[in-house]
Amino acid sequence: MRVRKRKGAEEHLENHPEYVIMNPEDIKGHWKEVFGNDHPIHIEVGSGKGGFITGKALQNPEINYIGIDIQLSVLSYALDKVLESNAPNVKLLRVDGSSLTNYFENGEIDLLYLNFSDPWPKTKHEKRRLTYKDFLETYKQILPEHGEIHFKTDNRGLFEYSLASFSQFGMTLKQVWLDLHASDFEGNVMTEYEEKFSKKGQVIYRVEAFF
Amino acid sequence: MRVRKRKGAEEHLENHPEYVIMNPEDIKGHWKEVFGNDHPIHIEVGSGKGGFITGKALQNPEINYIGIDIQLSVLSYALDKVLESNAPNVKLLRVDGSSLTNYFENGEIDLLYLNFSDPWPKTKHEKRRLTYKDFLETYKQILPEHGEIHFKTDNRGLFEYSLASFSQFGMTLKQVWLDLHASDFEGNVMTEYEEKFSKKGQVIYRVEAFF
Repeated sequence: MRVRKRKGAEEHLENHPEYVIMNPEDIKGHWKEVFGNDHPIHIEVGSGKGGFITGKALQNPEINYIGIDIQLSVLSYALDKVLESNAPNVKLLRVDGSSLTNYFENGEIDLLYLNFSDPWPKTKHEKRRLTYKDFLETYKQILPEHGEIHFKTDNRGLFEYSLASFSQFGMTLKQVWLDLHASDFEGNVMTEYEEKFSKKGQVIYRVEAFF
Repeated sequence: MRVRKRKGAEEHLENHPEYVIMNPEDIKGHWKEVFGNDHPIHIEVGSGKGGFITGKALQNPEINYIGIDIQLSVLSYALDKVLESNAPNVKLLRVDGSSLTNYFENGEIDLLYLNFSDPWPKTKHEKRRLTYKDFLETYKQILPEHGEIHFKTDNRGLFEYSLASFSQFGMTLKQVWLDLHASDFEGNVMTEYEEKFSKKGQVIYRVEAFF
């Protein structure tokens, strides 16, 4: 997600250590302590403006959520959402998706969400797609055996690519939705992007896959 | 594919033993002799009115094709197409998709096509879908190691089901198309059904998967 640079974004994040984890290396293996309970931990890689992760946190108080994004300004908007929600079960983390094993112990994460990830449509940028095999290898390490990825996107090319990438990595597709909003799927939490583009008639694709 | 019963269909088929194989049990393991050459053999399970299998035969003279359908009247229309084409590399077979191992030796078939198969949308009819696991087990036996299924459909529910079914059976998705006609896929041969429904704006899904 690209947004205009926000003035004071870094300071804003630093002012809220109760939500924004500034020293994630030190917390590797100790995330349950950060949340102060034994609930499962779900993360969203590329959490954008935070609508999804905040909505999920409010929807499921018995699950802990971590929104991860590398972009300062984007994460600062997510912080606004989190502050507004006052949800105790959500944290934000400003790190890169490829470095997750630095911050999470093997199997420390129970479920991983990818929502409307940058499609990087050019073949030469394949390695940047968050469903490229190197990322899957990273996700596999921090998830338990048979851990799941739940992925949705409106981008046809990225979804075609990702189904094949999951499969060729050895993952199994648990269920596929080729028009999520026309299906009987319950409890969908829309991202800001999803809200905007589904109104325009864009089909939303979704898949649940496990290692 | 449902068509009205055609008068004289059975006689029509019997009159053309050069195209319609009447004793397939006897030919198991000897299909190359039937074609009189060593070319690869591709089959279409549920060949309907024969537009696809005939088109493929004309497109690829170095490949042998067998169109398979259980319905007399449907197969008799496919025979019309084959007769009109005069293609030497296509045969027709009236048997059920679940009984293929009676007619083909292990690994005797090089590629298997499924096109616009009956979606059987009700859950209680899952076992009738041509991508149900029992059918996949049958296909696996007659295909070589890592043999491929190429499947296309306009039915969203069947495609969602089939991607998961292939994957859960242990097959790997080689490539997925979520809008075949908008893609750069070359050499697509349309079925009669595909021609009609894609004109109406219906999206065509396609997948290549291997065991």
